[in-house]
Amino acid sequence: MRAVVMRDGRLVVDDIADQRPRPGQVLARTLACGICGSDLHTLHHVDEIGAQMHEASELGAQGPLPIAPAITDFGRDVVLGHEFVAEVVEVGEGTGNCAAGDVVVSVPVVFDESGLYMVGYSDVYPGGYGEYLCLADMLALKVPNGLDPHVAALTEPMAVSVHAVNRSGIGPGDAAVVLGCGPVGLAVIAALRSIGVETIVGSDLSAGRRALAGVMGATEVSDPVTEPALDTWRRVDGRKPLVIFEAVGVPGMLDLAIRDAPRDAQVLVVGVCMQPDTIRPMGAILREITMRFVYAYSLEEFADTLRRIAEGELGELSPMITGTVGLDGVPGAFDALADPDQHAKILITP
Amino acid sequence: MRAVVMRDGRLVVDDIADQRPRPGQVLARTLACGICGSDLHTLHHVDEIGAQMHEASELGAQGPLPIAPAITDFGRDVVLGHEFVAEVVEVGEGTGNCAAGDVVVSVPVVFDESGLYMVGYSDVYPGGYGEYLCLADMLALKVPNGLDPHVAALTEPMAVSVHAVNRSGIGPGDAAVVLGCGPVGLAVIAALRSIGVETIVGSDLSAGRRALAGVMGATEVSDPVTEPALDTWRRVDGRKPLVIFEAVGVPGMLDLAIRDAPRDAQVLVVGVCMQPDTIRPMGAILREITMRFVYAYSLEEFADTLRRIAEGELGELSPMITGTVGLDGVPGAFDALADPDQHAKILITP
Repeated sequence: MRAVVMRDGRLVVDDIADQRPRPGQVLARTLACGICGSDLHTLHHVDEIGAQMHEASELGAQGPLPIAPAITDFGRDVVLGHEFVAEVVEVGEGTGNCAAGDVVVSVPVVFDESGLYMVGYSDVYPGGYGEYLCLADMLALKVPNGLDPHVAALTEPMAVSVHAVNRSGIGPGDAAVVLGCGPVGLAVIAALRSIGVETIVGSDLSAGRRALAGVMGATEVSDPVTEPALDTWRRVDGRKPLVIFEAVGVPGMLDLAIRDAPRDAQVLVVGVCMQPDTIRPMGAILREITMRFVYAYSLEEFADTLRRIAEGELGELSPMITGTVGLDGVPGAFDALADPDQHAKILITP
Repeated sequence: MRAVVMRDGRLVVDDIADQRPRPGQVLARTLACGICGSDLHTLHHVDEIGAQMHEASELGAQGPLPIAPAITDFGRDVVLGHEFVAEVVEVGEGTGNCAAGDVVVSVPVVFDESGLYMVGYSDVYPGGYGEYLCLADMLALKVPNGLDPHVAALTEPMAVSVHAVNRSGIGPGDAAVVLGCGPVGLAVIAALRSIGVETIVGSDLSAGRRALAGVMGATEVSDPVTEPALDTWRRVDGRKPLVIFEAVGVPGMLDLAIRDAPRDAQVLVVGVCMQPDTIRPMGAILREITMRFVYAYSLEEFADTLRRIAEGELGELSPMITGTVGLDGVPGAFDALADPDQHAKILITP
C-alpha cells in the first residue's frame, strides 16, 4: 500500500507492506487524517519524542492507554497520523463490534499479543498517513450516519480540548483567555463556547487565525503585538474568575501567562512544550496562580466528543479545516503549515 | 528605643527614634519576635525584595492587605520582624479594641493617613526586631490567657502553613510529602497532622530537622541523599491522592517535584523562590500535575490559627523554637540559622 513514511528525518511517499488485521483487529481504509502539530514536531525532533515515549513507558497507563505503549524504534520507518477516520474493509478473528463498510474513528491505540502501540507513532502499525490502518475492533466508534467523515476526523483534537476544558472546571460564569489559536486553541474555543462560556478572548499573532478564532466562538480577539491578551480581557471583562488556556507550547509562554495573570487565575497548560522552560515563581506566588497541566483524554471523553460533534453541540467545526491533500501533497502541506495565516487543520485524503 | 537595624546590607544594634501611636494605633512592647527565612533573604537580596514590593504594589490587595502597601525605601534604616507578640503599653486616639496590658499578635500590617505599611519591611514603622511596635488597634488579636507568648509568636508562620494546607484542599484520606523541614515545612507538617492526614513524609538534608519533623507529626522522614522523598512515599503508601508541599524555595525544587511526582499529584508551592526557575513541562503534562502557588493568609485564617494554637488543635509547637536571643544576639543568630542542624525558629526577646 502507499503511505507517507517518516524516514531519516524526512517524509517520503513510498510503497510499504500491505496490512492484515490480527485477531481482535479490523483493517480500515483511511478516509481522512488530520496533520497534528505534534506530527511536525516529531519529524524535526524525533529524539525528544523518543525520550518522551520512554518516560511515558515508565508511567504505564495514561490518557486513553490502559498500559504503557511499546517503545518505538524511530530508526525504522514510521507512518504518522493519529487523527483519522476510516472505513472498515476487513474484520479479523474474534471481532464483533465493527463490520465491513462501517465508517469509524478510534483513539489512536492498537494492541496485539506483543503489546500496545500508539497509532501514528509506531514502527509496527502504520498511522493515518497511509492508505490502510489496523484498528482495535473494540475501540472503534462508528461515525453516526450523516456526519461528514472529514468533520469526524476532528474527533481526536476536539477530544484533547474537551478534556482540557473538563479539567479546568470552567463554567459559564467564568472567563477564558486562549493563548494561541492554532488547531488546539481553536478546538478549545469551540469547546468553551459549547458549554456557554460568555467571555472568550482568543489571541494569536496571525490575523488569519484570529479571524478563525472569531468564527469558532471567541467573543474577542487580541493581536498580542498591539494588545496583550490579558489586557484585552481586562478591557472587556476584568472581573470574572479567569482560566488562561496556554495553547502555544513554546518556551516562554508559561512565564508570559504568569506575568500577566490576575490574582487567583488558573493557567491551564494544553500546549505541549517539550523543551525546558523558565518561569519566575514570585509572580505566581504573589497572585496565587494555579498551573494545571493536562494530557490527552479518557476513552469516555473521546466517545462523548464524537457524540457532541455529531449532534452539533460543539458547533460548526468545518471552518477549522483549511485544506485537504493527497499523500503526494503531504510534504508540501508540512511546509504550508509553517505559515499560520494560511492554514489551521489540513486533512490528508489518501 | 533600641532596635536591630538593617543598614547598608548589615544588621546593627542602635538607638532609633521612640515610637508614639497615631490615631487608630497602639504602642506595644515586643515580647518576642521570630526570625523568618525571608528576613535572612531580605538582608542579602534587598533588590529582589524591592522588586517584589513594586510588583505587590501594582497588584493592590493581597493576602491580609486590603490595599497595596507603600513602597519601602531600603536605602533608609529598616527594622525587620513580622512574627511578633507584644504587650500594649499605650493606646492612641480613636482606639477601642486594645487596652494597656493586653498581650497581642497581629497580621504585620499598620496604616495611617499616608497609607498602609508592612510591619517588618517598612522604613516608616519598625518591626519586631525593636523594643516597641506601633500596631493597628483594630487588627490586634488578644493572646488567650494561658498561652505562652513565645508560642503565640508562632501565629504568623503557622498561619502561612494553615493557608497552604487550606488551599491544597488536602483531606485526611490523602497523603502529603513535605520537601524541606525548615520552619515553613515544620509548620505545614503540624497543620497537616492537625487535620488528620495519616501519611506525612518530611524530607530534609539535615538530620536535626528530620528529627524535628518527626516530633511535629511527620509519619516518615526521608534523607534525600539516601532516598528521595517520593520514593519514601511510594515505599510507605504509594496509592493515596498526593499533595507535595514544596517548602524549600530555591531554584530546581519545582522541577525536582515534577520529576518525581506521580500522576495527578498536586505540587503546593509554599516555599518562596525569588529567582527565575527552570522546569521541564513535559513530565508535568504526561502526568497531569497541578502546581498551586500560595501566599500569606487571610485575616480570618490568621485569627483562626491563633485560636487553634491556643486550644491545642495544632499540637505542641514549642519544639519548633530552638533558641532565643536578645537584640545584641541577632547578628549571631542570623549566622547560626545558616546551620540547619542547630536551629529551626529562633525568637528575639528584646
